[in-house]
Amino acid sequence: MAIRYPNGKQYTQPVHKSESTQPKKDSVFSNRGMTLEDDINETNAYYLSRNLAVIHKKPVPVQIVRVDYPARSAAVIKEAYFRQASTTDYNGVYKGKYIDFEAKETNNTTSFPLKNFHAHQIAHMKQVGEHGGIAFVIIRFSKTDELFFLPFYALNRFWERMHDGGRKSITKAELADCSAALKLGLSPRIPFLNAVDAVYF
Amino acid sequence: MAIRYPNGKQYTQPVHKSESTQPKKDSVFSNRGMTLEDDINETNAYYLSRNLAVIHKKPVPVQIVRVDYPARSAAVIKEAYFRQASTTDYNGVYKGKYIDFEAKETNNTTSFPLKNFHAHQIAHMKQVGEHGGIAFVIIRFSKTDELFFLPFYALNRFWERMHDGGRKSITKAELADCSAALKLGLSPRIPFLNAVDAVYF
Repeated sequence: MAIRYPNGKQYTQPVHKSESTQPKKDSVFSNRGMTLEDDINETNAYYLSRNLAVIHKKPVPVQIVRVDYPARSAAVIKEAYFRQASTTDYNGVYKGKYIDFEAKETNNTTSFPLKNFHAHQIAHMKQVGEHGGIAFVIIRFSKTDELFFLPFYALNRFWERMHDGGRKSITKAELADCSAALKLGLSPRIPFLNAVDAVYF
Repeated sequence: MAIRYPNGKQYTQPVHKSESTQPKKDSVFSNRGMTLEDDINETNAYYLSRNLAVIHKKPVPVQIVRVDYPARSAAVIKEAYFRQASTTDYNGVYKGKYIDFEAKETNNTTSFPLKNFHAHQIAHMKQVGEHGGIAFVIIRFSKTDELFFLPFYALNRFWERMHDGGRKSITKAELADCSAALKLGLSPRIPFLNAVDAVYF
């Protein structure tokens, strides 16, 4: 599979309220108007092309209600609705291990709100861990392009703290304490397998 | 998750050309108008509820072209098209191993046509095996409710035979030689993990 980087997408200068808040040293890798999903899809394509891992994004789940079958044309879905995903967005195999993760972005700057996860996604990642799989989340603070690789067992502590009446978010300092380093790069964009190696192997 | 078996679906008597061709001993488990997909989904729900494995069907991939956002209502997809799946339909984790499989039905009675698989699905299952995952296919002969659990490495031999100019299908006798036993049951409907155990553990 061909790697589409550089991918021809238009370069979009990130808007910053203050120049001084922008980490200059990372500016060459700064996000070119790409979503976290774009970056992870490119990363998975890179890993697949280098024969390092087989990881794919699952399709968006939709409930199909009405389909037209025009003569001599492809079937057209005329009515459908988005369904809530019952699992996570990405899974696959790496070094013989089952890999399962979710990626989330926030516009917050100081903490990551736990409402970004659904209870069934947490339950799913817990089950994955119980069966010997590797579950984690990738969190991106959009305004600063900061990335955190948070193993599920760490995320689960914050989730349970919330259910015990504690705060409904993870502070950035807490994230830094519990995460593996993850720096936006060129190829691959988001080298999360390095973090998997560091935490799980 | 609740197991929906018995699931309230209407019982449909299978139509047989000749009574004598029906295997009487299996009639209590005969297919109640359910598709192979229904059976596998029920099986996966059973395995999940018993905490034996975490395996899910991937959503159907669709290319969404137009979405309406009516006021005070859920977004409605108004135009979308079915895309060809780039991987297989089912994956998950079992005993720490990555599991990946495809399920196919045929109305043929004597052989299974290889055109039921796309080249990229074969490539995907090959990659899965190379990374230490477990890849296989479940094949059902609809008319006789016969089930075959065919490991990918065996399927791949027939696929390569076809590409070397050989026959474009797998005869039932060949399938029986290369497959693990798989009998339609009650709970779970299709006990494929027994076959995984027999072949891979």
